[in-house]
Amino acid sequence: MAESSSVIPTPLLKDELDIVIPTIRNLEFLEMWRPYLSPYHLIIVQDGDPTKKIHVPEGYDYELYNRDDINRILGPKASCISFKDSACRCFGYMVSKKKYIFTIDDDCFVAKDPSGKDINALEQHIKNLLCPATPFFFNTLYDPYREGADFVRGYPFSLREGVPTAVSHGLWLNIPDYDAPTQLVKPRERNSRYVDAVLTIPKGTLFPMCGMNLAFDRDLIGPAMYFGLMGDGQPIGRYDDMWAGWCTKVICDHLGLGIKTGLPYIWHSKASNPFVNLKKEYKGIYWQEELIPFFQSATLPKECTTVQACYKELSKQVNAKLSNVDPYFTKLADAMVTWIDAWDELNPPSKGAAGIANGSA
Amino acid sequence: MAESSSVIPTPLLKDELDIVIPTIRNLEFLEMWRPYLSPYHLIIVQDGDPTKKIHVPEGYDYELYNRDDINRILGPKASCISFKDSACRCFGYMVSKKKYIFTIDDDCFVAKDPSGKDINALEQHIKNLLCPATPFFFNTLYDPYREGADFVRGYPFSLREGVPTAVSHGLWLNIPDYDAPTQLVKPRERNSRYVDAVLTIPKGTLFPMCGMNLAFDRDLIGPAMYFGLMGDGQPIGRYDDMWAGWCTKVICDHLGLGIKTGLPYIWHSKASNPFVNLKKEYKGIYWQEELIPFFQSATLPKECTTVQACYKELSKQVNAKLSNVDPYFTKLADAMVTWIDAWDELNPPSKGAAGIANGSA
Repeated sequence: MAESSSVIPTPLLKDELDIVIPTIRNLEFLEMWRPYLSPYHLIIVQDGDPTKKIHVPEGYDYELYNRDDINRILGPKASCISFKDSACRCFGYMVSKKKYIFTIDDDCFVAKDPSGKDINALEQHIKNLLCPATPFFFNTLYDPYREGADFVRGYPFSLREGVPTAVSHGLWLNIPDYDAPTQLVKPRERNSRYVDAVLTIPKGTLFPMCGMNLAFDRDLIGPAMYFGLMGDGQPIGRYDDMWAGWCTKVICDHLGLGIKTGLPYIWHSKASNPFVNLKKEYKGIYWQEELIPFFQSATLPKECTTVQACYKELSKQVNAKLSNVDPYFTKLADAMVTWIDAWDELNPPSKGAAGIANGSA
Repeated sequence: MAESSSVIPTPLLKDELDIVIPTIRNLEFLEMWRPYLSPYHLIIVQDGDPTKKIHVPEGYDYELYNRDDINRILGPKASCISFKDSACRCFGYMVSKKKYIFTIDDDCFVAKDPSGKDINALEQHIKNLLCPATPFFFNTLYDPYREGADFVRGYPFSLREGVPTAVSHGLWLNIPDYDAPTQLVKPRERNSRYVDAVLTIPKGTLFPMCGMNLAFDRDLIGPAMYFGLMGDGQPIGRYDDMWAGWCTKVICDHLGLGIKTGLPYIWHSKASNPFVNLKKEYKGIYWQEELIPFFQSATLPKECTTVQACYKELSKQVNAKLSNVDPYFTKLADAMVTWIDAWDELNPPSKGAAGIANGSA
């Protein structure tokens, strides 16, 4: 491995990490995660009827927010948080006071590596986040900071220091994260391929960020992790994490931050209903054909040196360039501004949530 | 797997592929490859003293070129082919008349996959080359055309057709392809991690292309696979494949072609001498710091619609922008032109080696 400390105290970053879970059901899935997740604080965001009681397994330390709590805490700004959709999870990012976030869906279980050993997903996310990323040049042996790997011949020495890693995107064994059309065409496909790799998504390249098994450095990129307007009253669903991923990637590229994908795997237990998904996705599927070129060509001015400034600038560009796709994007651009205002209200800049000051690459 | 035919006749592409081997020794390593490589035609390029006789194991069909042959065939244009350096292998690409090339070093043996099964590296290269590449957007489950994989949710549908794959870059178990400084610092490091993935290097991202285990579509990209001026009489070595990789990537990006990396692995048997390597590499190590920004910002005009035109344009830019780094680059730029002239002489355009006509992305 390239020079980088791998000594991390156990339990890893206990006082610096929150686990955010959006849910509509009792959290039995946490039983299986007990050895790995019970030392950490949970922030549970209830995504449906606030009168329903969510059961959390004993021994877990948690706070739970339902819609009434969100309305009470954010007041009119609560309009930026989705209702009856797991996109509401980003409220948890906002109320956290920790440096790191791990967010996981309630149908994701502990996966096994090829040797049959349980995978400690959170540990791998933390490793990914604590060692640098390499977005400016591709390393053919994948993450050069992993044990047993390094930069290969021909990798420029000036780029070997890397940049801070802001996001760790984990994958899924069993049920792959497919869109509704692919689910319909391949109902029996399962992901059984364990790819033993972590890699940095290169600068200038977009990727589909899935929110199922995701960790990030809240201080570095938190305000970009807005999951948009989905679910109840909105014309679209299942693009919450995608939206966050596109915005986050553009901002990371601008600020000189890295995004890693690959390990860790979780076990995704069951496919959501493809017919319901198709209804949620169908507008996204064709809107996306205009959104991707928009994000591919989006550039941010040098003056934007904080995540908040970048995000507000992006909201202006969304309003200017995507409102003609659908009036929804005017509403979304407004919500993006509301989100940042709410973020700053709950996280006054003095508390250190302002991102990096001068990291433009 | 995304829609793409996986039925390939056996032995795969027998009459459409040549194997190019640069060597200074007898080719005993071919004994181990017999089940996989003996059906194919070999082009052996002798990289040292032409009076030395190279022994090829029986049963292999081959042609062998030494320095005298190269001088005889190319006349004064032979000056573009390196002497006493494995960079001479590119002469083999030029004299081949086949659509595909697989090139392998003579210290590379058959590797085993994690189940202990011998890996048919050539078969995997052919699979990589025959299915499309996806350079415009990153797929988090890696190559979407592999069995058991597909495009994930959020991958734009308009990009799922992919583009033709021009290059398949394979990796190495055991001795990793490290530069001399890394070899010196980590003499005992071995690569034992089998990463079961193939992926497309995104558009706009450079990578360190290693010539040890490499296949490409000669019709699509052949004239860009020039391995430069290395070895005898030159101030630099071990940057032959890197040079070819940077030029090839810029041209593939311009023409809308893809480059894949990952599987297959070969077993790299022994590390070359790090002290000798340091001597060969040291100028490259610091020149590279100026070469990478040059290639990262290089753009080709729309009018360049063939690989040859792209390559000649690149040679002009090398001359204009890198000659101030070292006079070597003036000489190299000239050699790039000579290479294309020699290529076209041996491969008149009517014979179909002119690349794609209108593939600009």
